[in-house]
Amino acid sequence: MKEFMGRDFLLETETAQHLFHDYSEKMPLIDYHCHLNPKEIYEDRRFENISDVWFGGLQPDGTFYGDHYKWRLMRSNAVPEENITGRDDDFKRFYEFACTLEKCIGNPMYHWCNLELHRYFGITEALNHRNAREIYDKCNEMLKNDPNCSARGFIKASNVHYIGTTDDPIDSLEWHEKMAEDKTMPCIVRPSFRPDKAINITKAGFTDYLRKLAAAVGKDSLNSTQDVIDALVNRAEFFKAHGCVASDHGIDYMMFREGTMEESDAALKKILDGGQISVEEAEIFQTKIMQALGRAYHRLGIVMEIHYGAIRNGNEAMFEKEGADTGFDAIAPTNSQEALIRFMSSLYKEGALPKTVLFSLSGRDNELIDTALGLFQSDEVPGKIQHGPAWWFCDTKSGMEEQMKSLANLSVVGNFIGMLTDSRSFLSYPRHEYFRRIMCNVIGNWVENGEYPNDEEALKEMVEGISFKNAARYFGV
Amino acid sequence: MKEFMGRDFLLETETAQHLFHDYSEKMPLIDYHCHLNPKEIYEDRRFENISDVWFGGLQPDGTFYGDHYKWRLMRSNAVPEENITGRDDDFKRFYEFACTLEKCIGNPMYHWCNLELHRYFGITEALNHRNAREIYDKCNEMLKNDPNCSARGFIKASNVHYIGTTDDPIDSLEWHEKMAEDKTMPCIVRPSFRPDKAINITKAGFTDYLRKLAAAVGKDSLNSTQDVIDALVNRAEFFKAHGCVASDHGIDYMMFREGTMEESDAALKKILDGGQISVEEAEIFQTKIMQALGRAYHRLGIVMEIHYGAIRNGNEAMFEKEGADTGFDAIAPTNSQEALIRFMSSLYKEGALPKTVLFSLSGRDNELIDTALGLFQSDEVPGKIQHGPAWWFCDTKSGMEEQMKSLANLSVVGNFIGMLTDSRSFLSYPRHEYFRRIMCNVIGNWVENGEYPNDEEALKEMVEGISFKNAARYFGV
Amino acid sequence: MKEFMGRDFLLETETAQHLFHDYSEKMPLIDYHCHLNPKEIYEDRRFENISDVWFGGLQPDGTFYGDHYKWRLMRSNAVPEENITGRDDDFKRFYEFACTLEKCIGNPMYHWCNLELHRYFGITEALNHRNAREIYDKCNEMLKNDPNCSARGFIKASNVHYIGTTDDPIDSLEWHEKMAEDKTMPCIVRPSFRPDKAINITKAGFTDYLRKLAAAVGKDSLNSTQDVIDALVNRAEFFKAHGCVASDHGIDYMMFREGTMEESDAALKKILDGGQISVEEAEIFQTKIMQALGRAYHRLGIVMEIHYGAIRNGNEAMFEKEGADTGFDAIAPTNSQEALIRFMSSLYKEGALPKTVLFSLSGRDNELIDTALGLFQSDEVPGKIQHGPAWWFCDTKSGMEEQMKSLANLSVVGNFIGMLTDSRSFLSYPRHEYFRRIMCNVIGNWVENGEYPNDEEALKEMVEGISFKNAARYFGV
Repeated sequence: MKEFMGRDFLLETETAQHLFHDYSEKMPLIDYHCHLNPKEIYEDRRFENISDVWFGGLQPDGTFYGDHYKWRLMRSNAVPEENITGRDDDFKRFYEFACTLEKCIGNPMYHWCNLELHRYFGITEALNHRNAREIYDKCNEMLKNDPNCSARGFIKASNVHYIGTTDDPIDSLEWHEKMAEDKTMPCIVRPSFRPDKAINITKAGFTDYLRKLAAAVGKDSLNSTQDVIDALVNRAEFFKAHGCVASDHGIDYMMFREGTMEESDAALKKILDGGQISVEEAEIFQTKIMQALGRAYHRLGIVMEIHYGAIRNGNEAMFEKEGADTGFDAIAPTNSQEALIRFMSSLYKEGALPKTVLFSLSGRDNELIDTALGLFQSDEVPGKIQHGPAWWFCDTKSGMEEQMKSLANLSVVGNFIGMLTDSRSFLSYPRHEYFRRIMCNVIGNWVENGEYPNDEEALKEMVEGISFKNAARYFGV
Repeated sequence: MKEFMGRDFLLETETAQHLFHDYSEKMPLIDYHCHLNPKEIYEDRRFENISDVWFGGLQPDGTFYGDHYKWRLMRSNAVPEENITGRDDDFKRFYEFACTLEKCIGNPMYHWCNLELHRYFGITEALNHRNAREIYDKCNEMLKNDPNCSARGFIKASNVHYIGTTDDPIDSLEWHEKMAEDKTMPCIVRPSFRPDKAINITKAGFTDYLRKLAAAVGKDSLNSTQDVIDALVNRAEFFKAHGCVASDHGIDYMMFREGTMEESDAALKKILDGGQISVEEAEIFQTKIMQALGRAYHRLGIVMEIHYGAIRNGNEAMFEKEGADTGFDAIAPTNSQEALIRFMSSLYKEGALPKTVLFSLSGRDNELIDTALGLFQSDEVPGKIQHGPAWWFCDTKSGMEEQMKSLANLSVVGNFIGMLTDSRSFLSYPRHEYFRRIMCNVIGNWVENGEYPNDEEALKEMVEGISFKNAARYFGV
Repeated sequence: MKEFMGRDFLLETETAQHLFHDYSEKMPLIDYHCHLNPKEIYEDRRFENISDVWFGGLQPDGTFYGDHYKWRLMRSNAVPEENITGRDDDFKRFYEFACTLEKCIGNPMYHWCNLELHRYFGITEALNHRNAREIYDKCNEMLKNDPNCSARGFIKASNVHYIGTTDDPIDSLEWHEKMAEDKTMPCIVRPSFRPDKAINITKAGFTDYLRKLAAAVGKDSLNSTQDVIDALVNRAEFFKAHGCVASDHGIDYMMFREGTMEESDAALKKILDGGQISVEEAEIFQTKIMQALGRAYHRLGIVMEIHYGAIRNGNEAMFEKEGADTGFDAIAPTNSQEALIRFMSSLYKEGALPKTVLFSLSGRDNELIDTALGLFQSDEVPGKIQHGPAWWFCDTKSGMEEQMKSLANLSVVGNFIGMLTDSRSFLSYPRHEYFRRIMCNVIGNWVENGEYPNDEEALKEMVEGISFKNAARYFGV
């Protein structure tokens, strides 16, 4: 029996151990997509206790903030909501979580949490209901007294080279400006451009958002598709001037419906007048915006990330109570393949397809994405069109293995840009370690099984590439 | 090489062997969903010969009865239909099946059949064309002479704690009444409520069925949606009074279309008048019935099981010849995810969502179900919304592994209620053993690979839970 | 660590090694579906150099010909198009491919290429950027001087028993006639009937094609659905007279829409008049043709192969530049299951369903096909309805394992007709070896794991069957 989460955790062969310890582990990390708060990085935030870090919860202003992955597990284990998002008894919820986690064999959260306790707090025993009190106290003592237990401390301890936050086009980027001038920063931090709110034409809040976007570009209002495009491109240029290298689009599904500017404007006008539009009308507007942004990204050298395949806020009662991103989302099967290909083809034809990273929330789409990306590669950069790492619900050991094996089967896995955290927490960097162990193990198994020669030079290049160097080259950071 | 189907069959590690032999194997079993005939249990049915048990076949009244899994394999091996469902030569079909089974490496039927021969008839050699005669004779000798080789004998030998049969709402439950009064019963047997015929508004036989349902509640006819609901709820209460703890819905796909009672009544009237209705009209009626039943199940404490994803009777000629459930079904890809979530959300909002177990016939839906169930958990009971075990065509070694790994990735697998047989045969209990071996092996591998600590207390609780205790708590039996 | 691609490559157990070396490896091979050029077989084509064999490229007449699998990988590695399909510097592109291949760990191309170098050119070292020059020169020397390095030489060296080429119904089959009369042929070569162009009613070139088809049957024009059917059946009979045993249908998705002959004729007339038709109208025509061909195949004893699930030519700019089959295709999710079943049911009812082999490009469809085929088996031949081996993008180690395990779970894998190359190259026969190693390994693992007895007779029959004998019986060659 292997030691629980020991030195060679997940590394089943000598080759895997060698590749991880001698190459992968030594690489800095690039977290090109996360949801850290730039203000908290700049101000080097500290935390009240481990429950505050792990669960967040109901904030004084009535909003909810925290780790919905953990909340979901606790709800599945019949923990009352007041001990999940409620903040009355911070030890109680830590204890309830410990009881829940014990039943979560096979869940990535089991490894993430125990890796965090080990790597940041020196705790080597797995969390359970018997040691919950002791671990709780030890973490809190360190969070209170250890100078390294802060936002920047965790970043520094994790050998982070680059952080890409996720920012709204209307954001002033003030915290990013401050960080750019701060000589003490532990790593590069740059904004990423996420214009979903300007694209979700049929969702609540769209017209309000357009007013804010207008204000951000010094206008009273945006009255046409071209107005919206101009404002977004203006802001993308502003982001670029602040070092932005990536954008992100979180969409329900990939749409592609060609129409005229007049049709798109008519759809926009109906919405601005408080009316409703059909799915088809919405898609015409959305296609126009996505194409215009694609061209702008290509001109500005910004990578375009596209995420699709979630049903969000599916429990209406809980959405009303707690709002978005509180753990009530699911995987949605989508029919995105043809639209995705037609969208990329339309930009390719113009010579205006930017570097693109594709993510689906459904593991069933691996084979679709991995074949689609092969249609649009070019000699600009190896792996110009990428399949992003296993995302959200797919971000599991088997999900990562499947994503890499599918990519290897259908493309050139040596060019893969590797992992990101997608996280809101400063303690999530062990997910890179977890990924790297799994990646080295997959590669090690191929070598040990006689499926690839034991070619030190080639293996080193692949492992260092997927761990760090490919992303550094791809994003230019 | 491991011994064929030996003591440690499917148990690859010491941990797996320990978990199975010391914990799992000792637990009684709960078969919360099967198709045994209550009359045959009560009367302690005996069988003519092993072909009668295994293949059933054409009955004197012209209907077909038996194990369509086996029939399909024989048809795939070019066995003539008269030696499959025909009953002229019982040894001939046993022999043809032995010849077929030899080619079925990798098929669960290979293991099920050989486990049945071993566990109930003491036969240790795998069935093949050379020993078919000898095995046939030995089984038949025991079926004839061994007092334990009867319905109740097989149940007793299998350490069954609870059997949930599948019953029509119009059933008198007379055999269940007799069993409730019988002090010699080897286990608890209760009816389950399966109202499909009252929901399949566009299928042949619907209006006839409504007349029978009316009669069962002492009415002449059911003329409105509310009439149908009232009748079904009346019968659900009758079932509850007979100890029913579970209902089952076998539907093509999950639908959710909100409409008014008037729209639903209009659809019903068209059908009662011999007309036709659109898919949309049917879905309005079906949604009303499903919601009303969901509320009733919640009030009565009845678990709601939902099965979807089959294309039934796809070979029209054979359906005409042999009728339903004779082996002419296939997996259907469905688009059920959004409707499933909206349906559960609608009941959750009212505080009327019952305990629910979800099954899809497509293994592709594992990730969908496992994320959907996380939206509707509550503090009533751990794992209130369950993903049922791998069903029918998914009920294979790899299908079970995938179901459990997906559940573990995306939820709290320690709360899983585990296996059922879904079978028409008294010899199917080794499927529980098969499941338990696979489950212990999956868990054992995680522990041996250093992915979970060797925590005896936690592992015992999980293994006993998934084997028996979770289902006992969940169904209250 | 196992030797790279050594004697026991992919054979993890002693049983697997025994089954491969003692049974599978000794069998001749049947390549029942490929795209070899009959003229090149007859004329015993030789090649300029290894780049000519492996990459083909831009031909003097402006068309592109070659291996789009390799082109895709090179494009993914940022190789300029002039060094992929361009032919100016044949060593440069061989070198660029070597650099690309080094990064392709886990890709079947890695194994295919290295197996080809080993089996045909005696090169035991894996190709890489360091040895590219040496390997290039050695291959070219052999291609120039070794008398066995020719089309027929490669075929002979590969122990090929039967080759089924892919031919257009209007083809004169002159090269097949010559081969039939040639006593020196190294194996049986027969045409296969591929009438896609007569079915793709909405694609460019349809009306032109109908004119050619009319000419092929001595008519001026085909003006009705019946005319098209008569012409196709006439040509199928002509093919049959030339030894044809298989047909092939490459369709976007499986359609089934019943209509009248008048409706079908109306759709055809619109197209012949230069107009456009709806998807529904097209499907009525296509269903009529498919049904009529199915009946003809049944009468003539021709196997019907159906391939679906590709999006073709998805990069419009590159399609315009390089044409079809140049590496710009992807997997398409289709909704074919119900139509597939209804189509087969319609022929089964008439007693006119031919032997059928089903392929989907999506691995997600394994479970669908493997359950659908169970509906239409018969006592004509074991495994009358087959699931074809993992195809194109699925033709990988894991893709083959999944196809076989799904088939084993859901049907009788011992009746599987096994591998084909689907290739345009004379060097592709090691794909059969690759398949056989994987197949023996899967079976070996089941035996070693105690899941099937070590029954020499049964294992030999299965392994020889899947390697060769099943296909020989199925196609009657």
